[in-house]
Amino acid sequence: MGEIPDSHPRKASLLARAKLTEAASQGLLAESALIAHGRGEAFDYLLGEKTSKSASLAIRETAARLLNAERPVISLNGNTTVLAGEQAVMAAAIIGCPVEVNIYYRTPERMEKLTSTLEEIRNKVSRMTPPTGWNDAHWHDTVNSVEILGADADGRIEGLEGPRAICSSRGIEAADAVLVPLEDGDRCEALVALGKQVLV
Amino acid sequence: MGEIPDSHPRKASLLARAKLTEAASQGLLAESALIAHGRGEAFDYLLGEKTSKSASLAIRETAARLLNAERPVISLNGNTTVLAGEQAVMAAAIIGCPVEVNIYYRTPERMEKLTSTLEEIRNKVSRMTPPTGWNDAHWHDTVNSVEILGADADGRIEGLEGPRAICSSRGIEAADAVLVPLEDGDRCEALVALGKQVLV
Repeated sequence: MGEIPDSHPRKASLLARAKLTEAASQGLLAESALIAHGRGEAFDYLLGEKTSKSASLAIRETAARLLNAERPVISLNGNTTVLAGEQAVMAAAIIGCPVEVNIYYRTPERMEKLTSTLEEIRNKVSRMTPPTGWNDAHWHDTVNSVEILGADADGRIEGLEGPRAICSSRGIEAADAVLVPLEDGDRCEALVALGKQVLV
Repeated sequence: MGEIPDSHPRKASLLARAKLTEAASQGLLAESALIAHGRGEAFDYLLGEKTSKSASLAIRETAARLLNAERPVISLNGNTTVLAGEQAVMAAAIIGCPVEVNIYYRTPERMEKLTSTLEEIRNKVSRMTPPTGWNDAHWHDTVNSVEILGADADGRIEGLEGPRAICSSRGIEAADAVLVPLEDGDRCEALVALGKQVLV
């Protein structure tokens, strides 16, 4: 894809698309991940491609719940790592919680690629200008202490079967609140049945 | 993807997805083709995943206009070749018109792959049970006489620039009616400005 001019009315959408097709060619995504993104694009069109008032409220509420939780965790799949990995790592640093790679179509190759992508993202975020109230050194250290879980694979989500049940014992298994930017219904039900807050 | 049971409520949707991810891995599709399909899936969900009354009427109207046109043509891209190539070739045989491979992101490799895919489809369709009113031999010969245009690339769509202007002189350039199952707005406008009926 060539350079997209700043004036293009759908620049953000085209950039997101370019990031995802690039990630797909690198093997970071499941086969059907681009189709899932397309469904999201369509709903985004219908919502006018902006963050609605109710969505802004939901974001604030979610942030408050994560800050109040005993053991929060941010679950990431391929699409969210590629599109919002930086924001997720920033949020994890501020909340003081781990991120966990947890994917529907689990293969060792994808787990390894997503984990190392998040390590690169963490390194990049730790060198960024810190948010208000943080000095450079504190931000750098805090970001670098964000744990990237998932590859450990030593936990289970009770109520699910097969590879989708696999998680980290210190992440999703132990968590009382899970931020899951994209979720399948079965997994969501299983997490709720275990008494966790599921924030989507 | 494993076997999908007949009872699965979304079997058709999952099969379409499998066909497209397979075609993508074979290099038949543009990078963003799966994202486009996902947008279609979302709108399909919203329409209840069925053919509405108005859509049925539009299909009948389109068929009548193609049958009445002097020089109709059916334009096919990657997604429509993969998902509805058989139906397109059947329709072309009955109407007595060519099909033309015409793609937004044109590369010689994709043109060649889509053309040979359509040749295989034509061969398969020619051996199928013919529609009511056709005997085997007549159907076989008629289907095999359906021309697959596009690779010739000797025509132009006036009003467009670059590779998107390329078409077949005996297909879209000469046509008075073009069935374009999926269309970009610019090309649609250019075809309409040339006085063609554009059926989408």
